[in-house]
Amino acid sequence: MPKEFTEVPEGFNPFGDLLGIVFTAYGEGRSRCELEPRRDLINPHGVLHGGVIYSMVDFGMGAALYSVMDENELCATVEIKITYLKSVREGKLACESRVIDRRRRIAVLESEVRNGEEIVAKALGTFYVYEQ
Amino acid sequence: MPKEFTEVPEGFNPFGDLLGIVFTAYGEGRSRCELEPRRDLINPHGVLHGGVIYSMVDFGMGAALYSVMDENELCATVEIKITYLKSVREGKLACESRVIDRRRRIAVLESEVRNGEEIVAKALGTFYVYEQ
Amino acid sequence: MPKEFTEVPEGFNPFGDLLGIVFTAYGEGRSRCELEPRRDLINPHGVLHGGVIYSMVDFGMGAALYSVMDENELCATVEIKITYLKSVREGKLACESRVIDRRRRIAVLESEVRNGEEIVAKALGTFYVYEQ
Amino acid sequence: MPKEFTEVPEGFNPFGDLLGIVFTAYGEGRSRCELEPRRDLINPHGVLHGGVIYSMVDFGMGAALYSVMDENELCATVEIKITYLKSVREGKLACESRVIDRRRRIAVLESEVRNGEEIVAKALGTFYVYEQ
Repeated sequence: MPKEFTEVPEGFNPFGDLLGIVFTAYGEGRSRCELEPRRDLINPHGVLHGGVIYSMVDFGMGAALYSVMDENELCATVEIKITYLKSVREGKLACESRVIDRRRRIAVLESEVRNGEEIVAKALGTFYVYEQ
Repeated sequence: MPKEFTEVPEGFNPFGDLLGIVFTAYGEGRSRCELEPRRDLINPHGVLHGGVIYSMVDFGMGAALYSVMDENELCATVEIKITYLKSVREGKLACESRVIDRRRRIAVLESEVRNGEEIVAKALGTFYVYEQ
Repeated sequence: MPKEFTEVPEGFNPFGDLLGIVFTAYGEGRSRCELEPRRDLINPHGVLHGGVIYSMVDFGMGAALYSVMDENELCATVEIKITYLKSVREGKLACESRVIDRRRRIAVLESEVRNGEEIVAKALGTFYVYEQ
Repeated sequence: MPKEFTEVPEGFNPFGDLLGIVFTAYGEGRSRCELEPRRDLINPHGVLHGGVIYSMVDFGMGAALYSVMDENELCATVEIKITYLKSVREGKLACESRVIDRRRRIAVLESEVRNGEEIVAKALGTFYVYEQ
């Protein structure tokens, strides 16, 4: 049974809060988080900065993996490769992540970020799982 | 001759300002930017979030490339792969980026992020260059 | 309408022939190629070498992209990131590739390599399209 | 002290032999391997296939890592991202690989492939180390 995000105490995720990332689904090796572009998240070209979209992916992969980990396990991002397909000026982003493969120490995940129907970014990442 | 960062008007880089990324060197296909970890940039594990380090890389690569672009050219991140080597709890991060290869439309860049002497992350990325 | 692979003269694809890569589907931004492990494609650990699986991906992405290119266009691999999920000792590999996004100069593709039902590798790549 | 490649019995590396990859240096977390382009390694465009260059990288990273592993350890490629900078029609390729970071289970490596003085490809990869 998936762990509940409500276990996470308020203020426990400062960077997610700073960006305004909100999780709307979580469990069984999957997660979905959302973000609304804000004026302080744009880059010098006037579009949402790639680091914001990347952060959704990194958070989303972590949450998807966390949902299939044991109580005494923690995880860390080893590497993520992200490809940008469209720039974002307005709308609402949703990032869906899922565990593709989970071995004892290594997990492989993928994410897709959409702005409405449009795919904005795709990512493939590797996480390391260890015992506390 | 490299373009000057001082051309960028105050407030033109909202997301960089939000994270506290400061450029300390720029020109000839290279850039260096710095960031000091803050409490609102950490992840639920209490370490600097990977998205902050990634954002230094994305900004840094863009600046390095911008220094060798023509006046009428713009660039966009196609993809970046980042690998994390160490977690960061305190210190001061410096991200050095450089253009490895510049063709007419495509540029390849690499970045290394250090915390003092320690390498924290390495990245390899592709940017697209186009005319305004 | 997709171009036909039968246009490619015998002997035009020496490295694909060396590895024994056979295309079984091609068109509309997709391709499928297959390969049977052979004793001369294994690595020192006795499993199919990762370079063989990578080569299926690189060929497969190229073919998928070629199917949506104009007559006077050529393409080149910019970069590919491949993640291995399972090692292969026997069986028959099938690599399915598809174009996720096609802009004028840049295309983004993904591939999945299976050994029977089992996913063996996933890849995300970028290609450059240019006029002859 | 680095293990010697001469421990590897003839015929133990069938795919490396098929491609003509020859190791010329190995030890202390580094390796160097070479390859001469041959007519049966080219792609339909008449240039050396990217899978050949990738295979040099995968072999080279494995060898570099193997040089710092214990007797009872084995390694497997988790993922590699390779970026191509120049196409190769003739010359002689040399791939230099090195371990950037070695933790207990995870190693991060980078490779640079040159054709004479020209950089042909760069790669960044992750390997998993386990006990036999």
